[in-house]
Amino acid sequence: MSITTLSTSAQQVPSVSECGSSPVAVLDRTEAERRAGLLKAVADPVRIQLLSLIKDSPDQEACVCDMTAAVQVSQPTVSHHLRTLVDAGILTRERRGSWAWFRLDTDVLRDIRSFLV
Amino acid sequence: MSITTLSTSAQQVPSVSECGSSPVAVLDRTEAERRAGLLKAVADPVRIQLLSLIKDSPDQEACVCDMTAAVQVSQPTVSHHLRTLVDAGILTRERRGSWAWFRLDTDVLRDIRSFLV
Repeated sequence: MSITTLSTSAQQVPSVSECGSSPVAVLDRTEAERRAGLLKAVADPVRIQLLSLIKDSPDQEACVCDMTAAVQVSQPTVSHHLRTLVDAGILTRERRGSWAWFRLDTDVLRDIRSFLV
Repeated sequence: MSITTLSTSAQQVPSVSECGSSPVAVLDRTEAERRAGLLKAVADPVRIQLLSLIKDSPDQEACVCDMTAAVQVSQPTVSHHLRTLVDAGILTRERRGSWAWFRLDTDVLRDIRSFLV
């Protein structure tokens, strides 16, 4: 079997298929794990509600003080979910006076959408 | 507090915010759970590799016989992941002779992308 580099994110697969189809290169595991990490960061009902709330807020930013009542979970739970989204790079956080405000990182969301085509 | 229906998938939130921001309606929990379920079905490195392999195959369909070697996991593991994707509606399955072939459901992927805007 000859080895051909198809792209930096692809692995070679066998050139002969048992059913006669044409095998293709597959995304490498490291990149698949990166994508899975981003999707897991979003894949929670409360986090999806928080992202929706921020997206629909004026200027697409929201104060943490509004989130607890809106999603009807405790403040520590909201903080945990917001930290998960910030750690994944999906939200950015800014302190203004006593409150933390959150914005979507639209580049990261665009990246996630791009691999769901 | 007055109650105003903003949309079928939104809940009312308090009209007074502690920090003076303008609270917005939040996506309801049932819809958030549906979206989280779809994202969880995708959010696994092997399933992301399988989806990538199918997307990049001729006619965007792939035979199960090619997948085990490509993603380098056991056949039962591949079958488990394919079943998860079929159950979520992300893949459709068709038997041809001895082999099962899989295709992406592009409507479901479009739905997922639409709530990641």
